[in-house]
Order: sequence, then structure tokens, then C-alpha cells
Amino acid sequence: MNQSWYSRQGLALLTDFYELTMIAGYIKEGRADTRVCFEYFFRSLPPNAGFAVCAGLQPFLDYLSHLQFHEDDLAYLKSLKKFDDTTLEFLRAFRPTATVRAVPEGTLIFPHEPIVQIEGTIVEAQLIETALLNFMNYETLIATKAARICLAAQGEPVLEFGLRRAHGPDGGLSGSRAAYIGGCGSSSNVLAGKVYGVPVSGTHAHSWVMSFENELDAFRAFTKLYPQNPILLVDTYDTIESGVPNAIQVFREMREGGLQVRPAIRLDSGDLAKLSKLAHRKMAAAGFDDPLIVASNDLEEDLIADLKRQGAKINAWGVGTHLITSHDSPALNGVYKLVAIQSGGEWQPKIKISSNLAKATDPGRKSLVRYYNDRNEPIGDVLFDANEKWPDSGVVPARQRGLPHLPTSLRSAVRGEQLLQTVFENGRLTTLLPDIHTHRRRALDQIGAIPDEYKRLRNPEIYSVLLSAQLGTTKAGLIQSLGVPGA
Amino acid sequence: MNQSWYSRQGLALLTDFYELTMIAGYIKEGRADTRVCFEYFFRSLPPNAGFAVCAGLQPFLDYLSHLQFHEDDLAYLKSLKKFDDTTLEFLRAFRPTATVRAVPEGTLIFPHEPIVQIEGTIVEAQLIETALLNFMNYETLIATKAARICLAAQGEPVLEFGLRRAHGPDGGLSGSRAAYIGGCGSSSNVLAGKVYGVPVSGTHAHSWVMSFENELDAFRAFTKLYPQNPILLVDTYDTIESGVPNAIQVFREMREGGLQVRPAIRLDSGDLAKLSKLAHRKMAAAGFDDPLIVASNDLEEDLIADLKRQGAKINAWGVGTHLITSHDSPALNGVYKLVAIQSGGEWQPKIKISSNLAKATDPGRKSLVRYYNDRNEPIGDVLFDANEKWPDSGVVPARQRGLPHLPTSLRSAVRGEQLLQTVFENGRLTTLLPDIHTHRRRALDQIGAIPDEYKRLRNPEIYSVLLSAQLGTTKAGLIQSLGVPGA
Repeated sequence: MNQSWYSRQGLALLTDFYELTMIAGYIKEGRADTRVCFEYFFRSLPPNAGFAVCAGLQPFLDYLSHLQFHEDDLAYLKSLKKFDDTTLEFLRAFRPTATVRAVPEGTLIFPHEPIVQIEGTIVEAQLIETALLNFMNYETLIATKAARICLAAQGEPVLEFGLRRAHGPDGGLSGSRAAYIGGCGSSSNVLAGKVYGVPVSGTHAHSWVMSFENELDAFRAFTKLYPQNPILLVDTYDTIESGVPNAIQVFREMREGGLQVRPAIRLDSGDLAKLSKLAHRKMAAAGFDDPLIVASNDLEEDLIADLKRQGAKINAWGVGTHLITSHDSPALNGVYKLVAIQSGGEWQPKIKISSNLAKATDPGRKSLVRYYNDRNEPIGDVLFDANEKWPDSGVVPARQRGLPHLPTSLRSAVRGEQLLQTVFENGRLTTLLPDIHTHRRRALDQIGAIPDEYKRLRNPEIYSVLLSAQLGTTKAGLIQSLGVPGA
Repeated sequence: MNQSWYSRQGLALLTDFYELTMIAGYIKEGRADTRVCFEYFFRSLPPNAGFAVCAGLQPFLDYLSHLQFHEDDLAYLKSLKKFDDTTLEFLRAFRPTATVRAVPEGTLIFPHEPIVQIEGTIVEAQLIETALLNFMNYETLIATKAARICLAAQGEPVLEFGLRRAHGPDGGLSGSRAAYIGGCGSSSNVLAGKVYGVPVSGTHAHSWVMSFENELDAFRAFTKLYPQNPILLVDTYDTIESGVPNAIQVFREMREGGLQVRPAIRLDSGDLAKLSKLAHRKMAAAGFDDPLIVASNDLEEDLIADLKRQGAKINAWGVGTHLITSHDSPALNGVYKLVAIQSGGEWQPKIKISSNLAKATDPGRKSLVRYYNDRNEPIGDVLFDANEKWPDSGVVPARQRGLPHLPTSLRSAVRGEQLLQTVFENGRLTTLLPDIHTHRRRALDQIGAIPDEYKRLRNPEIYSVLLSAQLGTTKAGLIQSLGVPGA
């Protein structure tokens, strides 16, 4: 019961109003069946990021699988007095028929690459725009942030516990899912555990300690209840004078009682570098020389890197607010653009030119091919027209996106890999989607495989995304025929 | 059907894992029935804000009204092998019995004020912590951001259309709700219209124009379909050379056809100050001297204020990303702290002291009283012990929160108003909650009533939040008895 939220049902109205007014227009114009192709891509990476991690596809496909207008949706639309009966009847009968091609979740992706490609009627392509952007923008943003935080933690476990600062219940649920795909080891969000199988973890709160007569009693009660690897929060009163000594006392009692235990504490305030070193020293002096020290308190990738530079004795990282909101950049600028219209059975490439030529879209239905060198490192991605045969290795003739008339090339490719896969057709999934652990594994593997220069936390190298020679020629031609605004 | 998402059912597991481990502990310790009081408050306003606008209460109360563990929740918890049958049976039988007092939505609120007060068993108080924080933090954040943006727009309509950049479907739904409460005139989010009654609005997209042979045909088709106040998006190709002239042509044809129409365009890219002036001049020259010019494109309060300083001819503002994510500060630092425990029928005030004394909580169950001067302007808020009788006017003896041992006072009060109202008791709402328009009206009225110095966009005056003399004495005493860490 109560599955509709997680299964993304009943979301036909999760759309911008103008999509519906345009749809009414297409119906009225007799063009509702016009076949079009839209692509989802983003124009720039979050600040300081060298790559993004694709996430959000499964929730989008869940939504799409269940997409239909229910009577209460139609009654609401009718109440707006903007839509005639023809439109409402059309919507009542509507079921998605689009073909969806997409990059698998967990894949590293870069600006201007088609991540999701929708080929269908203009009505359905417009209707789903907002929801697609919503799902993909947010989860990709958070998976990317998680990957950066995990890079800063250098392989030490990162625990996500952002639910209380997430943007609504679903900011939490979707965010926990994406954070795990991006590399976090666990989440505090129990619902994410139930719905998506994210491992859940947690310790205790200050209120646990405050609800006892004293800290020592609180620690004793907690370790008695959870004798397997309990983590004690030591900063309720005074970390070094009270929390750590009381924790040591309790771990000593456990040891004396014959329990195998790795002492573990959590620091949640104060000077984490200094306190972790002091705590580590005290614990080592008590004979616990390999304690688990979890730190939390507004952590993000730069702070973690800085704590590591200071030699902080921390070996697990609890991250909340900054991760779940992508605090330094809380929106991915993903967009969804018309790239082709079918006319007389042929696809006509379309371009959107703004006064800033760099924002001109890349026309046409595309393939996205990633090339690798002989060390199996990715060396660049090339967008081809979907009908083009792409070379599998060697020199790949190409164009820069912003200079589509000037030849360039990608060299020394030993292997090419088409990243867009058909995942949805005729109203249903065409493939069983992998589980969340597979997505996470893919992300970790790909992050492992790309060269370090794309992974540093500041000024990462810019990964090559090129157009095929044919696509470049098409783009240059369209720009020329439409004229450059203001030129 | 499919109401469970909006009605906030099935969310028992929307909680941090440690809440459940602590609950199991309280059950095991025989303390599950201990009565406690927790309060929700935030420590600081978003950057540059002089006030916050309370929002998120109704969704929280919806959640609380439906709070129970379903069999699938319990099966999941059992699968974790951390909870014994006693705990699972306890959770199966669990129903909330807490008393909830809260500040009404739309009320202006300030740091350290109890916004929501939970009085109940320690089990339920812990269980609901995460969800309460999630609902209140996000909606209050967005209502506050909306209020700032509306202040910058100086009474001109602000249209929210952030759904595509919101944090998941519910980031959009909750965000649209909160943005409307904070003062926006409408949302693009159709679901927010259906679920919460937010007025919906929209124009058309670039893709509408691109799907036609040319821009003029696209505009003609759109105005034919929506002859009542259509808004034409004029920047698909070239705003000044193509979009505006084509729009003028179409509005002229409408006028010649005998239609009453206020010409309306939307600018979505480029130099909005310059383009709006050029567009206005062209439209005026064509005899349309009062056009509606809607601007959008990554707008926020500072940009809007800057466009106004430049004399931009814009009179409606479309705001998306920056509003729905509160981009410059995407999390409100609201917390939920234990303030009292009942023992032998008496409430014992509790305090949490950290190494930073300014972060010490204010102990005890409280009343929150707002005082007004003879111009009906709020002059300061005072926290009293819930059992204290508070003065209605005159000089109110008080203490600064950070110097609780030193007397101060609030002067010239002519009226006091208790802001905390009982809204939930014995498992159900005690009052019919007002509709969303009432919340919005309250926010607009209160923003109208507070002096300008709290409303400027930079360096606003800091509003006084004081402790009653009795509460100050209690706090000073607790700090002294516990000792100041590191002192």
C-alpha cells in the first residue's frame, strides 16, 4: 500500500502549465501526431567539477511507465476553463508511445552530451519535459556532488545524512538515492533504504545523552543495546573532558566484559582537526589504537580535504546539508531542446540560436560515442548523427562545437562505445533496469578509470566533447542559413 | 486515487535511522512513555534576510495525522536485523498522541524562536524529528526567498516557474506552495494548482515557435488559440529584429480584428534592461503604450533590483531556479532540540551547551509573544516559560539570549500576542487549518506592517528576540550548574 509516491504514479500534472497550453495548440492545429526528437543535456558542470555522474533515469522511467491522466487530474484541468473538451478527451486517452534512449545511471557525463533522447509525438515530448528535467537535474546534481565528496575522502566511507535539510520528503528520498549512486556508503534515510535498497546507518543524537542523568549512563545504555560496533556521540557536554573519557570508560568495560569491539566515536562540533587528534591520543593511551572517528558538522569536499591536510584523525565522514542540497551550486542547468522534426518521413535537424552563439544547440538526433585509449582511459566523446556510422578506432574526424566549420580530430582511439541505449518503447521498458548497486559500481569504476586531471577538486581538465564532421557541417549550415543575431 | 503522496501518508520511515535505534533504546529502558518537550527553531536567517516567513506546517500536520507503521515498513525494519520483536510490536501499535503548538504559516519569524513545539512521549518526539525538520526547513526557506524577491519586484507580479530545477517532484510541489505563501502571484506547476490551489500560469516555449515554419505563424496560432491576454515569447530567433516586430504585427492584427488585447511579451535571454527598453519603444511606436513585458532568465532579488535601477521596462517577473532552490543559500539551519523533560509531574528545563556558548539552547517549554507599538508595528518578541503569565503592554522585563544574567527590557509595548497556537492533540488536528490564500494574506499583511529597516535587501536591522526575566534566570542557572566547556 501507499506505493504511489515511490512508484511515481499519478504525476501527469507534474508539468509546467505552458506544456499543456502548447499541447492544446498542437491538437487544435492538427499537429498532435507530428514526430519530434528532443534531447536532455546540460550546458555546464557544477563549479570546479570535471565530470558529472548521471542519475535520475529510473525514477523518470517509472513516471513515464505510469503516465496517464486520471479523472481528478482532468476535473482540475476542466476547472481552469482553458481547455476544451477535445483537449480533455485527448488527454484522457493519452498513453506514452515515445522511444527513449538514455545513458545508463552511474555513467560519467559532460556538458552538451545528449543524456536522454525522446523520440515521439510533439504532444508527449512536451508533456514530459518538466518531469524529465526535474528528475534528471536533481539526481545528477547530487550524484556528482557525492562523487566529489568521496574523492576528497580518498576512499574512506562517506555517510549521507541530509534528510532534515533536503528540499521536501522527495528531495531526501531522491537525494539519498543519488548520493549512493555517486559513491556514498550509506544513508540515514530509512525510507531510501526501504524504497531503493540504500544501506542505512546511524548513531545516536545529543538528545539521547540529555535524556539520561549523565553521559556515562547514556553511553552504557547505548552500548548494551547495540554491542556490535556502537558509535558514541561525544560532544554533548565537553568532548575532551567528558565525552571521550566516558566513551573510553565504556569501551574499556566492554573489553573487560570479553566483548570484541572497535571503539568508535562521533565528533559533531568544534575544531574537528584538533579534537580528533586529542581524542585519538586519549584513546590510543587507553590501548585503543585503531578507533573509528566519525566527523560531521557542515562538511563538504573542501573542508574534508582541508582536514586531511591538517592530519585530522578522522576516518569516516558524515555529510548532510552540503551534499543533499549541493549547497555551493544547488541546481544543474540541464535543458531539454527540440533537435529534429520528422517531415515526410525524414528527420529535419533543428537548431536554437540565441544572441550568444555559444548557447546554440547542436542539431539533429544523435549518437553519443565515448572513445578510449590503449590504457582503457576515456579520451573524448563525439556526437554523431543518429544515422551515421561511427568509426570504432583510429583517427575520428570531428569539429569543435563552437567552431563547427573547422576540422579537428580525435586521435589514437582504440575503442568506441555508444552510450545511448534504448530503454523505453511502445509504452514500456525495453530492458530490466539494473539495481542501485550496479549504478553505484559503474560510477565508482568509471571514476577509477578516468585520469586524475579530471578528478582534482580545483581547475580540473576539460574533457573533450566534439561533433562528428557531418554534424559539424549540418550545424554550420543551419547557423549560416538562419543568420547570426546581432551580427 | 493516488492521493497518498499529497496527503503525506505512508511516511513513517521518513526518518533518520538513529531515531529508530534510540526509540528501541527507550523501549528497552522502560522509558518509552517519558514525556518530553522538543522545540523547532532556526539559528540564523538566510544571508541578507531581515525576517523569515513560516511555512510547511500543514504538510507536517498531514504527515503527523497519518503517521503509522504499515506492514511493509515493519517488514523492512525486521529485515535489517537490528530491532527485536518487542520494538516492532511497539511500532505496529504506535499512534501519535503529542500535543503540537505552532506559529501559523505566513507569520514572520526570527532566529531562536520556537516555531513548532512538540509535547509528547520521547518515542514520538524523536520519531517525527526528521520529517518535521524536512517540511519546515524547506518551505520556510522558500517562502522567505519568495518574500525577498517580491520585495525587489516592488509589488509587480512574480511568477514562480522553478519545477524543472527543483529538488525532485516534491521540491517542486512543496516549493510552489511555499513560494505562493511568500508572495508569488502564480506558479507554472500544475500539480501545485491541483493539490494546493496555487494559481497556475504560463506562456509558451521556444519549441512552440521552432515547430512552425516561421515565428509569425507560431504567434498567430498561439493568439488565435488564447485570445485572452496571450503572452508571446519573442527571443527564439532575434528579439528586436524578429520577435518584437512579429509580436507587434500579430497584436495589430488582433486589434484590427476588433479584439481588446493588452500586448504582452516575454524576454528570456540577453540584456534584459536594454531589450526591454527597445521592445517597449517599438511597441509604443506601434500604438501599444502599456505593454506587459515579462522577463525571465536566472532572475533573483538582486538582479531584479538592479534591472529596476537601470529603468528596465519590465513589469512582471518570472523566477525559477533561484527561487525554488533558494540558490544563494539552499538550506535553512533549523534544528529541533529537547527543551524539557517531565519528571514526577514537573517539567525540568533542559539545555544543550556546546563549546560555542552562543549555540546554547534556551531551556524550557515556552510561549512566544510578539509585542507591538502604538502604530501596530512589531517591536520585538519575548520567549516566556509556558507557565509564566506574560504582560500585555508597558515595559516587559527581559534578558538578552546571550547574556541571560543581565536585565534589559522591551519598552512601549501596547499589545502582546501569543504566536504559538495548539493545532494538534490526541492524534488529530484541533482546528481547521486555513487555506493557502489565508497564509499568503497573512504574510503580505505582516510584511506590510513591519518597518522598512527589516525589509531592505542588504544589512537589514536585526529584530529583537529576548528571553523573559524568568527564562533568563533559568538559563543562566543551568549554564552555571553545568559549567562552560573550555572555560
